[in-house]
Amino acid sequence: MRVINFNPGPAGLPLEALTQARDELLDYQGTGMSIMEHSHRGPAYEAVHQEAIALITKLAGVPASHQVLLLPGPAHLHFATVPMNFLHPGKRADYVVTGTWAERAVEEAQLVGQARTVISTRDAEGRYQRVPRREEIAVDPQAAYVHTTSNNTIFGTQFHPIPDFGAVPHICDVSSDFLSRPLDVKALAFAYAGAQKNLGPSGLVVGLGNKAFLASARKDIPKVLRYQTHAEADSLYHTPNTFAVYLMRNVLQWIDRLGGLPAMERRNRAKAEALYGAIDRRPDLFQAPVEKPSRSWMNIVFRLPSQALETEFLKGATAAGMVGLKGHRSVGGVRVSAYNAVSEDDVKALVGYMDEFARKH
Amino acid sequence: MRVINFNPGPAGLPLEALTQARDELLDYQGTGMSIMEHSHRGPAYEAVHQEAIALITKLAGVPASHQVLLLPGPAHLHFATVPMNFLHPGKRADYVVTGTWAERAVEEAQLVGQARTVISTRDAEGRYQRVPRREEIAVDPQAAYVHTTSNNTIFGTQFHPIPDFGAVPHICDVSSDFLSRPLDVKALAFAYAGAQKNLGPSGLVVGLGNKAFLASARKDIPKVLRYQTHAEADSLYHTPNTFAVYLMRNVLQWIDRLGGLPAMERRNRAKAEALYGAIDRRPDLFQAPVEKPSRSWMNIVFRLPSQALETEFLKGATAAGMVGLKGHRSVGGVRVSAYNAVSEDDVKALVGYMDEFARKH
Repeated sequence: MRVINFNPGPAGLPLEALTQARDELLDYQGTGMSIMEHSHRGPAYEAVHQEAIALITKLAGVPASHQVLLLPGPAHLHFATVPMNFLHPGKRADYVVTGTWAERAVEEAQLVGQARTVISTRDAEGRYQRVPRREEIAVDPQAAYVHTTSNNTIFGTQFHPIPDFGAVPHICDVSSDFLSRPLDVKALAFAYAGAQKNLGPSGLVVGLGNKAFLASARKDIPKVLRYQTHAEADSLYHTPNTFAVYLMRNVLQWIDRLGGLPAMERRNRAKAEALYGAIDRRPDLFQAPVEKPSRSWMNIVFRLPSQALETEFLKGATAAGMVGLKGHRSVGGVRVSAYNAVSEDDVKALVGYMDEFARKH
Repeated sequence: MRVINFNPGPAGLPLEALTQARDELLDYQGTGMSIMEHSHRGPAYEAVHQEAIALITKLAGVPASHQVLLLPGPAHLHFATVPMNFLHPGKRADYVVTGTWAERAVEEAQLVGQARTVISTRDAEGRYQRVPRREEIAVDPQAAYVHTTSNNTIFGTQFHPIPDFGAVPHICDVSSDFLSRPLDVKALAFAYAGAQKNLGPSGLVVGLGNKAFLASARKDIPKVLRYQTHAEADSLYHTPNTFAVYLMRNVLQWIDRLGGLPAMERRNRAKAEALYGAIDRRPDLFQAPVEKPSRSWMNIVFRLPSQALETEFLKGATAAGMVGLKGHRSVGGVRVSAYNAVSEDDVKALVGYMDEFARKH
């Protein structure tokens, strides 16, 4: 029996996407082999590859100025390759630091070239309980680029909406909310997303690049690390993670059937409102540290008044078939990851459990 | 119905490994979710991860001086990260160029630092029909490292055995024959293998590093690109390609059940001998360009006297349920990729077809 999976990533996947994968795992569409046994140069995989790119283009409304890239994971790798590509010598990059992964991103950039933290919302206790307002971010108009993180999985904050920096190229790590709501792709010079939250299994990154920006990147770095190489080869310069692309394709079809990003946004907003509602009904018991305008729809975090109560809460949830609720090992507490594949019914079950837990305490 | 799959990579996988994956794709061992929906920090995946490392250690006879790493794919990525890690400023690396992938490796290294082709076996027509003898390779005793490619998938050559360079650190791309025969791991400073030939699906690379050599690498490059980072974190610094590690674990269990690398070597030698036997029985019809001592056991290549005969040969093979035999698009001809998962019966079927084709012509 399947559990209700609130894992923070790798995360639960739509049952339809997985069932399809299971049913054709030994024989993909009568070809006599698994999709992962097909050559990445053969017609079966190439069709999957092109369909995945076409579906992302359609769902995210990628304009003709931009190109979809299917890249190796992890997203962490791109903390390094982003500055290697776009941080030209003599220039400086501005990083907006709103969480642990943004810290890692700026640290990697500083090993490549000149990069600074233009603003950090880290508080005295080392926590990130809000994202900055646009007017707080004093971006250098000469910056090579400004880097942001749209959603922060560990602390549970999210930009609503992603800020606009005008003429300064904006690079956004959209790993944990890509395809969970509409995105203004044309405002971004480059965006990248690890697949294992809303899109598919781990080991795959989706990139969205402004074509002129990609073409402007450094050419004195290894060819395989240049985004332009993958743009020119339609993401087939090397063997991609073919099974992950296939499974993501299944997930993208599922998103499309459900109504695309407007439907995902409705669904994810409703899930987040239900969860924050349960928290706010009992602020003495469920303490949400994040400032309200910065609350994430993807990762809803809260604490209980004592370690004993947290343990009891998590144990009861597991007994009720709900898993993955333990906060990140660096911060503790409870974290509800409610990515696309988590249904409104899944959230209803959790809200019911929270309300009942509250009645008892 | 499953076909007989001679794909060059991504390649066929053992049916047992795939069937196991299919049977537990929606519910891994009663946990209520797929292995790819598990957190990489949870006990279910961690056990798979550790078992994969333990099985590689056992099967390849990895000594205590060395460590197994599970790294992001593609192997192509490592053409860049190998020199970034090990090509120290002021030093030069020596590359033994025996095929297309070795060319790519030295080209990437030259974008990072000083690297030279110490020997190339490319002939006047641009083909690689042999690997060099050890005495032909005049390695600089001061080289940062010497880089070789154990098996060349496109031209069908292989080192028998992999050469020894004494005190000069030896880095070997073992992508297309790792775990197909015993390997003297302790003679290598570093080795890396894309999984999609003998080990599993694409999107995963196995590394084998001498611990002291890993620790000696450059520290002024992004942290995620340093092999030492992954060594210290037991290959869990970032989210790995969890499904690929799981499927590789299934394949490793299968290799172990069959008798490990001595059994694989026996099996692969027998397959290669049967195929080269069929070729050599009719040298007028099946023209094997590779010099005999350099013949690959993994990729057996030959040409027929005309394009029309090649087309007829390939068409007949497909009709008989045998696929993946077309040579690489850069060289044409026929290529039989006979990795671990290809059985002796599969090869017997092909040899039968070749003999019959020969009788008819």
